[in-house]
Amino acid sequence: MTLTRDLALDPAVSALLFIDVQNFSCHREGGEFKHLSPQELEQTCGWYFKELETSVVPNMQAVQAACREAGIEVLYTTIESLTLDGRDRSLDYKITGFNVPKGSWDGKVIDAIAPIGDEINLPKGSSSVFISTNIDYILRNLGVKQLVLCGMLTDQCVESAIRDACDLGYLVTQVTDACLTLTPERHDQSIKTIKGYCRQITSAQLIEEIGSKPTA
Amino acid sequence: MTLTRDLALDPAVSALLFIDVQNFSCHREGGEFKHLSPQELEQTCGWYFKELETSVVPNMQAVQAACREAGIEVLYTTIESLTLDGRDRSLDYKITGFNVPKGSWDGKVIDAIAPIGDEINLPKGSSSVFISTNIDYILRNLGVKQLVLCGMLTDQCVESAIRDACDLGYLVTQVTDACLTLTPERHDQSIKTIKGYCRQITSAQLIEEIGSKPTA
Amino acid sequence: MTLTRDLALDPAVSALLFIDVQNFSCHREGGEFKHLSPQELEQTCGWYFKELETSVVPNMQAVQAACREAGIEVLYTTIESLTLDGRDRSLDYKITGFNVPKGSWDGKVIDAIAPIGDEINLPKGSSSVFISTNIDYILRNLGVKQLVLCGMLTDQCVESAIRDACDLGYLVTQVTDACLTLTPERHDQSIKTIKGYCRQITSAQLIEEIGSKPTA
Amino acid sequence: MTLTRDLALDPAVSALLFIDVQNFSCHREGGEFKHLSPQELEQTCGWYFKELETSVVPNMQAVQAACREAGIEVLYTTIESLTLDGRDRSLDYKITGFNVPKGSWDGKVIDAIAPIGDEINLPKGSSSVFISTNIDYILRNLGVKQLVLCGMLTDQCVESAIRDACDLGYLVTQVTDACLTLTPERHDQSIKTIKGYCRQITSAQLIEEIGSKPTA
Repeated sequence: MTLTRDLALDPAVSALLFIDVQNFSCHREGGEFKHLSPQELEQTCGWYFKELETSVVPNMQAVQAACREAGIEVLYTTIESLTLDGRDRSLDYKITGFNVPKGSWDGKVIDAIAPIGDEINLPKGSSSVFISTNIDYILRNLGVKQLVLCGMLTDQCVESAIRDACDLGYLVTQVTDACLTLTPERHDQSIKTIKGYCRQITSAQLIEEIGSKPTA
Repeated sequence: MTLTRDLALDPAVSALLFIDVQNFSCHREGGEFKHLSPQELEQTCGWYFKELETSVVPNMQAVQAACREAGIEVLYTTIESLTLDGRDRSLDYKITGFNVPKGSWDGKVIDAIAPIGDEINLPKGSSSVFISTNIDYILRNLGVKQLVLCGMLTDQCVESAIRDACDLGYLVTQVTDACLTLTPERHDQSIKTIKGYCRQITSAQLIEEIGSKPTA
Repeated sequence: MTLTRDLALDPAVSALLFIDVQNFSCHREGGEFKHLSPQELEQTCGWYFKELETSVVPNMQAVQAACREAGIEVLYTTIESLTLDGRDRSLDYKITGFNVPKGSWDGKVIDAIAPIGDEINLPKGSSSVFISTNIDYILRNLGVKQLVLCGMLTDQCVESAIRDACDLGYLVTQVTDACLTLTPERHDQSIKTIKGYCRQITSAQLIEEIGSKPTA
Repeated sequence: MTLTRDLALDPAVSALLFIDVQNFSCHREGGEFKHLSPQELEQTCGWYFKELETSVVPNMQAVQAACREAGIEVLYTTIESLTLDGRDRSLDYKITGFNVPKGSWDGKVIDAIAPIGDEINLPKGSSSVFISTNIDYILRNLGVKQLVLCGMLTDQCVESAIRDACDLGYLVTQVTDACLTLTPERHDQSIKTIKGYCRQITSAQLIEEIGSKPTA
């Protein structure tokens, strides 16, 4: 085993995971924003949606296409309860007031990067997908050793996933320009905090790396 | 805390779990039996289906009705992959050759005890629901301390669930006449082996116990 | 990946685990038997200790020596609390009344197969070592894929470990004549029940298999 | 259940956990610093050790004394392998080069807050104590619902523990002036990032809160 985090992806043992790229939190009409007036939305989330629409989602689409092309497993996790009333959510989500009911539009991955074919989506009820879903079990069964992460929020669910994945022995690649949070300061700060736990590259670098490999 | 396994259910902290009561393994046309001719099915599974139809399923229905009436959470787990091709299954299920594709008829709970309303079903890809799903996390969020188990096979998935649930600190009640396996000998043997890990009562006893409590 | 349970050990990805081969439960003066008079001990455990001393422990010693010789990791787990008063034990062990205090003689592996050098011992507070310890995490870090199990009781802690290890994706080898429980009937019954979850071979077969491999 | 993070401790269901307050990382002669000359140590860690010695350790001692007085369980986790050569560590620690051998001085809690009596210490081989140890299992058996965290580094092992504990349903209290990392900027940033996952109070506030309760 090579003892480094700077390891190019081996498609046969790699997976791409999109975190919380769903209507609830990535669509202007999503549940997370419904209590905001248009003015408030623009004020608090104006930068976020602009970044999302002009940069982050296009980067995600490019990464998704490259991974699919290379035969890399693509997975999704979204905040979604297993019930309508959310009684199965974490205590933390209950306190926060987050409930994305089972089967709701809010719980769906946004159309721009919607799952196709036989791709896996894991509904989750807490910040870290490794705590509230059986993703570690699934990745084990898929033979995954290297995990590529994109999504939001950079400093919340994404950062928690990076920390836990790293501790669990996955070699984590964070696609920095395919992650987003509510302000550029928070995004940059998280990237800096987390850099010891993963490899950080841009979507362009990742796509070049994947493209330079012979297809699986 | 009372240090005994012989504790009547407190509906507020109890849940009923049905294990693998699904078309795949509980319907004569289920996937587990499709390689058998009618004669072979009768020969190898004649006792099983007769027990199921005349006794076990009616007992399950009665237990289910009593738990719903008392406000006890009713959950289900079924063998079902998160994919069509089953690549997310356990290595064990891959070796065995079990694959119940996502969304298939085989993966559905049998009509007789079908989930209603906001009840939870957890698809699983291994014998023990505690290893291959996040049920422990879900039960924690639901506040469950006492777990009632029914289903099949008594000596396989049910026994594994009892062992793990017990180790995890749940007070487990096995409804012995709402569990089934392929022969009466195997059933009786498992009941005997597992008796130190749980409380074992009949469906009639359970229903009486629940009925004697004021409704939640 | 070869989809079979009948795979000879690859020493580089194999480990041997001894379960509960400790003074508490394998020594005539162990805590589990201290409430018994010599006559009662002979009556209830006479067969057990005779088997243990004349057959099972010698088999364990031979398996242990062969594994060490082949460079196979040797691990141990013993019932032992992390405290003197046992407050960290599982609810099940509290109900049963089992408490092997931290650091006690009862918690030590028996002299005949005592750990040497840098071998790992994991204290556990429930039946299944996979539920109450971090062994899955440790085996992952060690790169273990194939797990050899010996110990006692065949139908309790050993069987629980086999079930969970199998579900977790380990290829499990049970050394049938290096496992023991209180009666030959219970031992034989468990071996039969569990045979779909593992490969079952004798200590002689295992030693021959290991010996026929070039040393790692 | 009260849906708030701002809940005063109930000693009967609370525990205090010290994270990595050990010679390796909290003593000027600890292993983490042994490659530094005295000048380099002063330059890179001067602020850290001054804070530690003049403020953080005294705060920890006060919190520890108050918790012990109130009958609150006090636990510790330290970076320490289960082996001498560290083969059981996480891949991440192997890459980083951290190995605190089993039983070493580096792995001991610093004298100033050393465990006494029957207190529990959990050796860990990764950043988050919830990933690499069985602490969740232990806390469950202890009946803990509220977890107080102190230690270092604020933005690494402490932050990971807060995130995971929160997701797992514990009500977390971070004692902000009993946590430390290498610079004040990093400390403040982490406190800000993590504030949605826990209650943050000072050691003085915690001690007052505990003191105002009748002793258990």
